[in-house]
Amino acid sequence: RLIETLEPVHPADIADFIEQIGPVERRNLLTLWGPQIDADFLFELEEGVRDEVMEILSPEQIAVAVQERDTDDLVYLVEDMEEEAQEAVLDALDEADRVAVEQSLQYPEDSAGRLMQRHVVTAPQHWTVGDAIDFMRASDDLPDQFYDIVIIDPRHKPVGEVRLGKIMATPRWVKLADMMEEGLRTIPVDQTSADVAYAFNQYHMIQAPVVDENGRLVGVITIDDAMDVLEDEAEEDMMRLAGLGAEEEITDSVWETTRQRFPWLGVNLITAVFASIVISFFEDTIAAIVALAVLMPIVASMGGNAGTQSLTVAVRALATRDLTGSNAYRVVRREVLAGLLNGLAFAVIIGVVGVIWFGSPMLGVVLGISMVINMVVAGLAGILIPIGLEKAGADPALASGAFVTTVTDVVGFFSFLGLAGWLLL
Amino acid sequence: RLIETLEPVHPADIADFIEQIGPVERRNLLTLWGPQIDADFLFELEEGVRDEVMEILSPEQIAVAVQERDTDDLVYLVEDMEEEAQEAVLDALDEADRVAVEQSLQYPEDSAGRLMQRHVVTAPQHWTVGDAIDFMRASDDLPDQFYDIVIIDPRHKPVGEVRLGKIMATPRWVKLADMMEEGLRTIPVDQTSADVAYAFNQYHMIQAPVVDENGRLVGVITIDDAMDVLEDEAEEDMMRLAGLGAEEEITDSVWETTRQRFPWLGVNLITAVFASIVISFFEDTIAAIVALAVLMPIVASMGGNAGTQSLTVAVRALATRDLTGSNAYRVVRREVLAGLLNGLAFAVIIGVVGVIWFGSPMLGVVLGISMVINMVVAGLAGILIPIGLEKAGADPALASGAFVTTVTDVVGFFSFLGLAGWLLL
Ligand SMILES: [Mg+2]
Ligand SMILES: [Mg+2]
Ligand SMILES: [Mg+2]
Ligand SMILES: [Mg+2]
Ligand SMILES: [Mg+2]
Ligand SMILES: [Mg+2]
Ligand SMILES: [Mg+2]
Ligand SMILES: [Mg+2]
Ligand SMILES: [Mg+2]
Ligand SMILES: [Mg+2]
Ligand SMILES: [Mg+2]
Ligand SMILES: [Mg+2]
Ligand SMILES: [Mg+2]
Repeated sequence: RLIETLEPVHPADIADFIEQIGPVERRNLLTLWGPQIDADFLFELEEGVRDEVMEILSPEQIAVAVQERDTDDLVYLVEDMEEEAQEAVLDALDEADRVAVEQSLQYPEDSAGRLMQRHVVTAPQHWTVGDAIDFMRASDDLPDQFYDIVIIDPRHKPVGEVRLGKIMATPRWVKLADMMEEGLRTIPVDQTSADVAYAFNQYHMIQAPVVDENGRLVGVITIDDAMDVLEDEAEEDMMRLAGLGAEEEITDSVWETTRQRFPWLGVNLITAVFASIVISFFEDTIAAIVALAVLMPIVASMGGNAGTQSLTVAVRALATRDLTGSNAYRVVRREVLAGLLNGLAFAVIIGVVGVIWFGSPMLGVVLGISMVINMVVAGLAGILIPIGLEKAGADPALASGAFVTTVTDVVGFFSFLGLAGWLLL
Repeated sequence: RLIETLEPVHPADIADFIEQIGPVERRNLLTLWGPQIDADFLFELEEGVRDEVMEILSPEQIAVAVQERDTDDLVYLVEDMEEEAQEAVLDALDEADRVAVEQSLQYPEDSAGRLMQRHVVTAPQHWTVGDAIDFMRASDDLPDQFYDIVIIDPRHKPVGEVRLGKIMATPRWVKLADMMEEGLRTIPVDQTSADVAYAFNQYHMIQAPVVDENGRLVGVITIDDAMDVLEDEAEEDMMRLAGLGAEEEITDSVWETTRQRFPWLGVNLITAVFASIVISFFEDTIAAIVALAVLMPIVASMGGNAGTQSLTVAVRALATRDLTGSNAYRVVRREVLAGLLNGLAFAVIIGVVGVIWFGSPMLGVVLGISMVINMVVAGLAGILIPIGLEKAGADPALASGAFVTTVTDVVGFFSFLGLAGWLLL
């Protein structure tokens, strides 16, 4: 009955269901489901849950699920597995697929070589539309995903691509070489997957041939896999900006979650202590005017928020390559000026609030000036820190949040309390 | 010479170049480029720059650029234009395209009706592979993007799809109805584009038929357009979490940037004043022990960071639908427990720091207890606020950052200063 219910459900939905129930129910369900399981959903699971499920499934079930898949899906499935589990899957494949997967695993993680499928439909330059159609009709094993035929020269170098739709719309006698798409873009096998995803998105590609260092065709990447990478990259930046590991999943256990978040919180603690040390320089000032303790978080908080805005814009624009050497100066200038203008606006507002609340015009002035200073610094730090990290070859999203808020906290407390000590005492 | 240089460059790269130079250079370049311009790059520009460029180009140049495009691209181009500019483009189209674009514009913004292309390759159920090939060969105007033939019944309702690759691999006499893909998924024309993108990503779709309320075929959506939406949605959440308008672009002017960021900074100011009011309740306590003013930002900052971590996980999981009613309780429990465990760990660390720094064991205890309280509250607020916003039909990414940090600031200052007043005075 369970099997009848699940039969028409898409494997991706089954995977979501398995992810969303608890670990105990998960084990019971899979045991109950037993040998008739269609283990296709394995390819849709988060890594943590997949490892759990792999231990429950029998080798036969896994073998059935993996045998009909394209090599890119298999690489995706096994690349992060423990050696033992990986071998169980590889042993279930036929010789050709196993070799293809093992070769792909030789390429670096997150490279085109891991993303590509090995099975490519190719045609020599002298073929006609009719030759291509006859060849495909005779072949009993075409890839699941293919949208273009890759035209290759005698040394197996891709020279062009022809869309399937175009082949179908063209008389049998036309030569493929005469109907190739303009501007062939090939992808080097060691290109990073982020660069691959960028190219697909930028140039509206559907499929692209992958070539080795000699320019020979080794595989093909399709848009669906590039789409996954593009989404993962955006997610990674979002997670890192919040101080989360990019691998954190909603299915992780309490302990795993605690452990993953600890390091970043530790970094934040250090930066917070830093800010406290700055405050401690002014203990006497605060003892004299307790209102300063009440108001000082406002300056720091506004700087932190403005800095996070600039930072997020910069990280995103670096990822989409909308921020480059040619407009960096213009963008830095814009961030600083926007910080200045908003700083002035909020300086007036908070200055008035300070005067009304504590009845001291000079306190309002101090609040206002330190607000302007901190928001200009926020704009500067928010844009220069990610650019600097990128230049240094680091991920601009990683740790830049901590840097930026440290700067705005330190500058905020220092300017506010320093000015207060100078002007109010 | 300029034209020769730009000829082989992809329109998307030309668009990036035009975006990255300053407004004055932009105007000069386009004037210099003059009438020979290939205005295809219009479709690749950010809205702000595009509006600028549209004013420089002549109506003839725009007409040439828009005439050969699919209707979905045209809708994308004109949907956010001022009425006048929109009409200039519509007038340049031939009658059929103009009507198609105008119909699409009737559908709500960000709906499937805006995303779809109207031109669909269809075949009746009784056709064979040979019929389909002959039909396509006879047709002189197939869409740029099409990967499946949609099989329709006599009332124009889609009943299935056949992949182009499969048609090419199958003998001419086989009936299309016998080779349709399993599990046809149609998209209602008023579905939100976020839901469309979710479906493409979840079910690995390449193309999907769009149907009206009577189930009749009105268009088709292809993966490249769904990919754009998926990326925009992730970007929007990232921007909103940082308090940025989703439409902010790196090409915006200083003034535009200042104006867009002001409202969120204003919200932050209000919440910061809120936190200050909480502190002001404890002015006497701080006056008695100035060390409290030095240490209090630590508790608030750690809570803010922990809350942002939980919040980001929750917003992302809601967007990918990995957080639903069936695992909400488990996830809330996890966030609270992870907050508790990390709270305990950092309570010990900061407690020791407090004791060493200020030599008061009781101050260390106060720091530790308030740290635990605030980090548990942070986990709770970080997960419940976005879930609550989602339930209320609001965007969980919008404004939730302000809510969460208000909660952690208020609770952090209140618990630390309150406990200190109670235990230390
Ligand atoms: Mg899933
Ligand atoms: Mg992977
Ligand atoms: Mg795109
Ligand atoms: Mg694939
Ligand atoms: Mg990245
Ligand atoms: Mg995920
Ligand atoms: Mg661009
Ligand atoms: Mg198109
Ligand atoms: Mg749009
Ligand atoms: Mg996917
Ligand atoms: Mg399209
Ligand atoms: Mg959204
Ligand atoms: Mg954009």
